[in-house]
Amino acid sequence: SSSSSSSSSSSHTIHNTSSRTSITNRPERRARLEAVARRKQRGFFVVLEAPSKINNVAAIMRTCDALGVTKLLLVAPQDGLLPGNKHHGATENAQVSTRTDGIGCRDDEIFSGEILRRCSASANFWVETQVFDTVAECAGFLDAMCVTSYGTVLRAESRQLWDTVFQLDGVGDNGVAVNKVALWFGTEVSGLSEAAVRYCERHVCVPMRGMVESLNLSVCVGMVAGEVVRQRLAFVRAEGGTARTTSLSAEDQAAWVARMSARAGKRRRRREGLGSAGADADVHLAGKN
Amino acid sequence: SSSSSSSSSSSHTIHNTSSRTSITNRPERRARLEAVARRKQRGFFVVLEAPSKINNVAAIMRTCDALGVTKLLLVAPQDGLLPGNKHHGATENAQVSTRTDGIGCRDDEIFSGEILRRCSASANFWVETQVFDTVAECAGFLDAMCVTSYGTVLRAESRQLWDTVFQLDGVGDNGVAVNKVALWFGTEVSGLSEAAVRYCERHVCVPMRGMVESLNLSVCVGMVAGEVVRQRLAFVRAEGGTARTTSLSAEDQAAWVARMSARAGKRRRRREGLGSAGADADVHLAGKN
Repeated sequence: SSSSSSSSSSSHTIHNTSSRTSITNRPERRARLEAVARRKQRGFFVVLEAPSKINNVAAIMRTCDALGVTKLLLVAPQDGLLPGNKHHGATENAQVSTRTDGIGCRDDEIFSGEILRRCSASANFWVETQVFDTVAECAGFLDAMCVTSYGTVLRAESRQLWDTVFQLDGVGDNGVAVNKVALWFGTEVSGLSEAAVRYCERHVCVPMRGMVESLNLSVCVGMVAGEVVRQRLAFVRAEGGTARTTSLSAEDQAAWVARMSARAGKRRRRREGLGSAGADADVHLAGKN
Repeated sequence: SSSSSSSSSSSHTIHNTSSRTSITNRPERRARLEAVARRKQRGFFVVLEAPSKINNVAAIMRTCDALGVTKLLLVAPQDGLLPGNKHHGATENAQVSTRTDGIGCRDDEIFSGEILRRCSASANFWVETQVFDTVAECAGFLDAMCVTSYGTVLRAESRQLWDTVFQLDGVGDNGVAVNKVALWFGTEVSGLSEAAVRYCERHVCVPMRGMVESLNLSVCVGMVAGEVVRQRLAFVRAEGGTARTTSLSAEDQAAWVARMSARAGKRRRRREGLGSAGADADVHLAGKN
């Protein structure tokens, strides 16, 4: 609020960046995608049950991108949260293609709306997100991959976050790969449903020391997912980073790069079809939140 | 988006609470304040330089309350961010008293606006916040208390968050009290200023694994401050919780309870002066974010 308030620094910060990194040619973009694929985590899922605020979902996408989360799963997002979702009214996002099936399927298109792009600093383009209509459907998806689910909930049986060991030693995987983990977070208003709490094998909570008994949803996801990353880094280091890995397999990295390249191409063609306005919007990686 | 989307759980969650905890009488409120004071941390500051988004500040207040942060410090908040701040126009907050001095002083009043209350789930009432006009003024405040400052910034010299040891062994304090720590976070757009980076003794960054090179500000604060709390819990446990403490002294706890009780009384009298509408608004601790 004074003359000293100007932040003239050109440095990148850990929560934002002032320079815009345009990726203008395909080899450069491909190299970038490959570098990100190498840092991406295997078997690390964030599940949001019935999220209702698009800015929380967007901030969480940004966190998922930053931490290398494998995939973001949304269970029964509230009506109108996503463009093309059931009963979605006319909003800024309505220009984006509408879902026609509406049932438990993934659809890249519904995650490319303008609000989502702006609030997530374009992370929405790079975080694979899958929608399920019910807890049971999401549970089926995770069970098929032998993922251990941790539900975040304030209950007597919940373990405090910083006492929780996220079972990293993979079983049945020759001991070299990290165990798969899903972190479940409930709706902003009432938390995880009973069905989700029952499904989760383990329960975790952030110890609350203050007058208000809750955290902002996206902050909570950042704290819990950050702790998983910390433990994964320590897990890899425990054997010198050779015998243990938390990375995607080479095949999975290549497949991710292929899917992301296809997405980028699709966006480019859509923009070209729509004309030149904002033609480069999605290759700017800067955020303003 | 389907019939299964109802989250009928009445459980508390770690990021929110569905029940409203009304504190209707003074002894009950006092007992609650005393319990929170016992959990509050000594010598743990969060500094925001030139924050520009009130919803980020609000979410950060909620995090500070939840983690027991001693005090939130704002350096040169952008014009209009806080009610009563310089050049503040007519907004929803304008009903709240205006600052007349405008210079580097604390003012409880400017942190009780409606937007702040709503976005912070009322944490704004319980987190002491101090405003400074310049980095130098804030630095002077911290230096007088021998606080070690950590600047969050993506630079070559920055240490990755999960490799950072937040120097917890207090010096000159008979070895029983935790070392004082301040975590500095830059503006949403361009990060910490050169002056702030130079002032901070140490620099830390959250390792970015994705396509977007930044996190949401409030998520970033949650991750870094959460790691400090994790280390403090381990620090206390290292000697069985007897020889080491991260808590406020008994005197400081009593003083905090007295200040918070005075604040609550002030709000009550103001409400009574204003009439009965929303008379109990600030004793509801539930949040909706």
